Amino acid sequence: MAGKSKRQIILEAAARSFRDKGYQATSMRDLADAISLKASSLYNHIGSKQEILRDICFDNANRFLSGMDDIDGQNIGPLEKIKALIELHIQVATEDITSVTAFNDEWRHLEDPDLSAFIQLRRNYENRFKKILETGMQTGVLTPTDPTVALYTLLSSVRWLYDWYKPERKPGLDLIRQQITSLLLKGLCQ
Amino acid sequence: MAGKSKRQIILEAAARSFRDKGYQATSMRDLADAISLKASSLYNHIGSKQEILRDICFDNANRFLSGMDDIDGQNIGPLEKIKALIELHIQVATEDITSVTAFNDEWRHLEDPDLSAFIQLRRNYENRFKKILETGMQTGVLTPTDPTVALYTLLSSVRWLYDWYKPERKPGLDLIRQQITSLLLKGLCQ
Repeated sequence: MAGKSKRQIILEAAARSFRDKGYQATSMRDLADAISLKASSLYNHIGSKQEILRDICFDNANRFLSGMDDIDGQNIGPLEKIKALIELHIQVATEDITSVTAFNDEWRHLEDPDLSAFIQLRRNYENRFKKILETGMQTGVLTPTDPTVALYTLLSSVRWLYDWYKPERKPGLDLIRQQITSLLLKGLCQ
Repeated sequence: MAGKSKRQIILEAAARSFRDKGYQATSMRDLADAISLKASSLYNHIGSKQEILRDICFDNANRFLSGMDDIDGQNIGPLEKIKALIELHIQVATEDITSVTAFNDEWRHLEDPDLSAFIQLRRNYENRFKKILETGMQTGVLTPTDPTVALYTLLSSVRWLYDWYKPERKPGLDLIRQQITSLLLKGLCQ
């Protein structure tokens, strides 16, 4: 895609390599090769593999938290908030390969204090999402269930898109978004 | 758990290490250390890291295919079959850590001809599952959607259990199973 910064190109190549080989087995040399840079030039843009992982994880965490701020601050009901949050996850999963790294298992390779900070952001996001689910259950819009089970089932249900989605895939992004949100919302409702 | 064979203990330790460090970064030495064996003793039980991965992937693929044979052979409707298949995925995810390896990304590290054979088994399983979904749509029991989108949303939605579930977790396995299947089946239905 045109207009991507060198930094974004590096983060995307790293996300692919972390997914395919794992964080530990990826070297800075692999990353330089993947984007046809000399290793010495790569170091002009980024200091270490750990710094790349940190950027990927915190960029994504902040994107979800900022989405949560927008959505949760609106004067709409819990069902509309949940719909908007599912759509946010679908959007991120289909437009940015780096999200697969942050939200599958690679964040486990962060080093402290980043690891603790990241877990805290993640917990914050999940707790706010659970609160919206609980409000929906208390007001009788949603079927009463364990909010953790409901939350993780929702979040997990769109994860396959990270790996599978390409713009040329059928049935197209609009229909995919509509069918997944409809399945999940109908499943949650009373 | 009592009564596990040495082979099963090795496969489980390997699945944990593949998940935490990645397949490529795991050495036979790491595996021997994880189960307090000498590396030379480990080789009495298993020939190579690739052999462990192969055993894990094919054990799990065969387990799902045999579950599919049982379920699809029964004289029940598509909705009952889908319910039984979701329950099968929940059961495997909560009782065997090695399934996380086979069904997340580690199977990508299989070498041919195993890689092609595994992809073929996987495709076979998915196609049979999609056929059941399509039958449900054609007979008007399920909402018409793209069967691939429905299938991957279902399979993906229980993946978090691999990592999260422990017998002491609340609300307990029976309720978790009931809440997840209810959410998904209600979501799929007309």
